[in-house]
Amino acid sequence: MSTPPAGPARWDKGAGRVIAATRILELRGVRYSNPGRARDGEFTVIAVPDWVNVLALTPDLRLVLVRQFRFGIDDFSLEIPGGMIDSGEDPIAAAVRELREETGFEGRNARLIGSVHPNPAIQNNRCHIVLVEHAERRAATDWDDDEEIEVTTAPVDEVLEWARSGRITHSLVLCALLYFEGYRRGKAG
Amino acid sequence: MSTPPAGPARWDKGAGRVIAATRILELRGVRYSNPGRARDGEFTVIAVPDWVNVLALTPDLRLVLVRQFRFGIDDFSLEIPGGMIDSGEDPIAAAVRELREETGFEGRNARLIGSVHPNPAIQNNRCHIVLVEHAERRAATDWDDDEEIEVTTAPVDEVLEWARSGRITHSLVLCALLYFEGYRRGKAG
Repeated sequence: MSTPPAGPARWDKGAGRVIAATRILELRGVRYSNPGRARDGEFTVIAVPDWVNVLALTPDLRLVLVRQFRFGIDDFSLEIPGGMIDSGEDPIAAAVRELREETGFEGRNARLIGSVHPNPAIQNNRCHIVLVEHAERRAATDWDDDEEIEVTTAPVDEVLEWARSGRITHSLVLCALLYFEGYRRGKAG
Repeated sequence: MSTPPAGPARWDKGAGRVIAATRILELRGVRYSNPGRARDGEFTVIAVPDWVNVLALTPDLRLVLVRQFRFGIDDFSLEIPGGMIDSGEDPIAAAVRELREETGFEGRNARLIGSVHPNPAIQNNRCHIVLVEHAERRAATDWDDDEEIEVTTAPVDEVLEWARSGRITHSLVLCALLYFEGYRRGKAG
């Protein structure tokens, strides 16, 4: 008689080594073993800090957007503000900081409405989604040396359409918009 | 009189070098220059093949799900089937192949309903979203050596709730569900 198949087993984490390190990430090889299947090996893990994305809503329900040249795709990308959370920094504080630095906007009632894993298979971090209301342009921008950002706003319902029509393609921005729809629906219900 | 601010400039791509290569990705340093701002530098780019994720709907509108241990987050993750597109392979063919290999399910009317960029800032690839209907378990699974997958199905409306409640956290799976909602709405409208 055969035993029914058990669920997939947790692999045991072993030693890791840094394969390469750049300013924004560490490429690691991490050993894992699965005793039940007598298998082990080294697996690639991209180690990065947690990230945050900011849904900043103006008083007239427009969403603050940023458009910038992105080296990964060698092209421009329309996104919401966001960035890396500093070591020890609170996700909400990071959101407020990134929003101000990238766009000059400041708002109220900043709150976390969701968190996702950019890529559980090969990347160790999370990306938090922070909603800021009553956002208005109050500060000067403070870009990094290589940042050059076009700041715009658009009606939030239009942006939600762009999420499904292919005008916005950044997966983490799409996740923020997915969470925003759920949040708004919950508030309305 | 000051000139109105121009939009952000396109950076000029220069030479690239491979910093490190693993089985699944290449870490590259790519030189970019921005003549208008007299800046240049080397930027990190993760080079990976395009990926595909599959929304496989059964005749009774359940979605095929896979649960597996993921080395990136050192934990289990509930996802839809998917994987890397082979060199020269069509995204739809890759979707049908990954669905069969990972779950044993086969269906009809496979079609592309969207494409996203996993991370425009640092990663060069796209992830395509393929919808398959009338999916039924017809084949044996064919897992890679280190794959061990729990295959389940759940009502698609329940899965859409899980996308916003934090039970599903994989950003690319969430993007597929976002596109599915838009697709279904368009069919109904």
